[in-house]
Amino acid sequence: MANVEESRDQDYISVDHMALKSWVTEVFCKLGVPREDADVTADVLVAADLRGIESHGVARLGRYTSRLMKGLISPVANPVIVRETSSTALVDGNNGLGQPVAMWAMQLAIDKAREVGSGTVAVRNSNHYGIAGYYAMMALEHDMIGMSLTNSSPLVVPTGGRKAVIGTNPIAVAIPAGKERPWVLDMATSVVPRGKLEVYARKNKPMPLGWAVDETGQPTTDAQRVLDALTARLGGGILPLGGTALFSGYKGYNLSVMVDLLCGVLPGSNWGPKVDEPVDGKLVPSRVGHFFWALRVDAFRPIDEFKQEMDDYIRMLKESPKAEGEDRIWVAGEKEWELQEEYSREGVPLYYKVVETLRGIGQEVGLPFDAMVLGAGHSTGMA
Amino acid sequence: MANVEESRDQDYISVDHMALKSWVTEVFCKLGVPREDADVTADVLVAADLRGIESHGVARLGRYTSRLMKGLISPVANPVIVRETSSTALVDGNNGLGQPVAMWAMQLAIDKAREVGSGTVAVRNSNHYGIAGYYAMMALEHDMIGMSLTNSSPLVVPTGGRKAVIGTNPIAVAIPAGKERPWVLDMATSVVPRGKLEVYARKNKPMPLGWAVDETGQPTTDAQRVLDALTARLGGGILPLGGTALFSGYKGYNLSVMVDLLCGVLPGSNWGPKVDEPVDGKLVPSRVGHFFWALRVDAFRPIDEFKQEMDDYIRMLKESPKAEGEDRIWVAGEKEWELQEEYSREGVPLYYKVVETLRGIGQEVGLPFDAMVLGAGHSTGMA
Repeated sequence: MANVEESRDQDYISVDHMALKSWVTEVFCKLGVPREDADVTADVLVAADLRGIESHGVARLGRYTSRLMKGLISPVANPVIVRETSSTALVDGNNGLGQPVAMWAMQLAIDKAREVGSGTVAVRNSNHYGIAGYYAMMALEHDMIGMSLTNSSPLVVPTGGRKAVIGTNPIAVAIPAGKERPWVLDMATSVVPRGKLEVYARKNKPMPLGWAVDETGQPTTDAQRVLDALTARLGGGILPLGGTALFSGYKGYNLSVMVDLLCGVLPGSNWGPKVDEPVDGKLVPSRVGHFFWALRVDAFRPIDEFKQEMDDYIRMLKESPKAEGEDRIWVAGEKEWELQEEYSREGVPLYYKVVETLRGIGQEVGLPFDAMVLGAGHSTGMA
Repeated sequence: MANVEESRDQDYISVDHMALKSWVTEVFCKLGVPREDADVTADVLVAADLRGIESHGVARLGRYTSRLMKGLISPVANPVIVRETSSTALVDGNNGLGQPVAMWAMQLAIDKAREVGSGTVAVRNSNHYGIAGYYAMMALEHDMIGMSLTNSSPLVVPTGGRKAVIGTNPIAVAIPAGKERPWVLDMATSVVPRGKLEVYARKNKPMPLGWAVDETGQPTTDAQRVLDALTARLGGGILPLGGTALFSGYKGYNLSVMVDLLCGVLPGSNWGPKVDEPVDGKLVPSRVGHFFWALRVDAFRPIDEFKQEMDDYIRMLKESPKAEGEDRIWVAGEKEWELQEEYSREGVPLYYKVVETLRGIGQEVGLPFDAMVLGAGHSTGMA
């Protein structure tokens, strides 16, 4: 999360998440997206900001709107089942917005799990779907375990390579608990997200050695150089989880490939360097793929017994002895739940440059951001 | 793999893998294991050595035989289905050897996938099952994708902690290809395996900072200190994949927890620090759990089309530009396939100390190792 290195007090503007979501919904509606789909897409984007994952929140709105305006994403999502068994389905997203397509596909996985214990759905021909964890968490209210994977544009260099040919391809898994909050993992398979490099580049600070490599494949501390070379597809990029070979970076590299094989090759989507690759210098539809999986807990154990033991597990982690200098062991998703509660109550902090971008989008589509979001009552102005 | 730092020429003895497997089978039979189960268990152990994963091969035989002799593992595996849906099952391993229990459970997952597209089987009350990849690879001949997870004794320290409360809990995934070899990931979720620390301890060499922490939770280069503290359960241990927080070690920590939740909590097995925890100073059955998953490829795409695109993917990786100083990008499983071919042909190298241990076991059960394995014809003597 970029906020770690930013000075939130000065550079962030706090907005009401409901007002923000309404405005984002209206923006999508203006661009021809049916209200129901606009609502889903806005909900996923704002959920990211609420959970502190600002790299995947409304900061990305411009990417969606410009692609909708250019006809690169179909405004009306029309996912269809191409092949099906009682526990699996292949879905074609028909180039709709990733969020409504993904929500529909994960719901299908949940429905199948309700019937036969587990449901696995792979999706082709889709678009960026926001935070992977959103869809995994859909399983929670059904007392199911959920998993959500997606592939993404090439930013990550395989171990031994010097070119980014795989994505930051995230893995998200959500598991229900009882009195404790659900356990929710939502992680990129790279050592850090691209946003982290952007923070170092903005501040002109050397980044830690082991996050990225330059065009020759050597580790570098120059974040701007890596970002420039990535944009120009010259080579270099982010290292996979684990970083260099000494720390088993090949494991992160292969986790990224695993996600790509399940999301790209299995459903017949784009994969590897083909994701978001311009054709004749022009942008074309992303054709990314997703992979969803839902598993009924009570196919294995009574749900109450399971949830109680999940609580025991989570408490075991929290109560485990701390390293000297540390006062807390975090459980997956815990930071995000805490931020979600805080930001729901006190407003979502948006980086001032993000607010500038949103103002621009608002002007373009005729939905003034300041009047509709900042003037929406409580939680406005500087944080 | 420990062999990286060892001098193979001097310290290894090459043996015929068929002779080795026969001898291991006989050892298990002597201890009351039915021949069929003995054969399976020997096959999984020798497969690890053939694939170069010596930490999980016959070097571990003593652990199995001593537990069988002490009555801590039931010699007759009798796995039973406790709960079942058309796509899922909970299996009780009844404290049998992990290998025959796991093979039976993975076969059940494959059978379910054949019927309904996917099969998910969680196992409780089992024992150490050897290499995770063995069971994932069982899916390949059925043109399915296979996954195999297991939890294991606590060796890994969660981010922010100073005590090993989670295992090296591996993730294995096997995906069929066409002309290329299948893609097989088999990785511990720790930054390195325990065996790697043992190599540095044996050589009295400082290990890289970022592999392990001492009893206070601080990174250390002293491998022997970490191993001693782990054995005495004093604290400290191996770091999760990613290492320290700077390199996103919390991702590896949470991947390890994910495996533990699916293998431990879901089926109702032991988990976390309870795995292999002595009771009143005495060893008790491990009660580890496993998790298997099989997915029919042709539920999503025609198998030939899929395999061809897997080949394209694998070639994309291999042909991707190399970092300066690197001449190869490895594909998951490729090293293991190459070793398997070499060692099948020319003999499996066993570390001389492992051979000493095997001789001891042979004397104990009345099956002389030298006569039955080293004297078995070709590929004997020093490598």
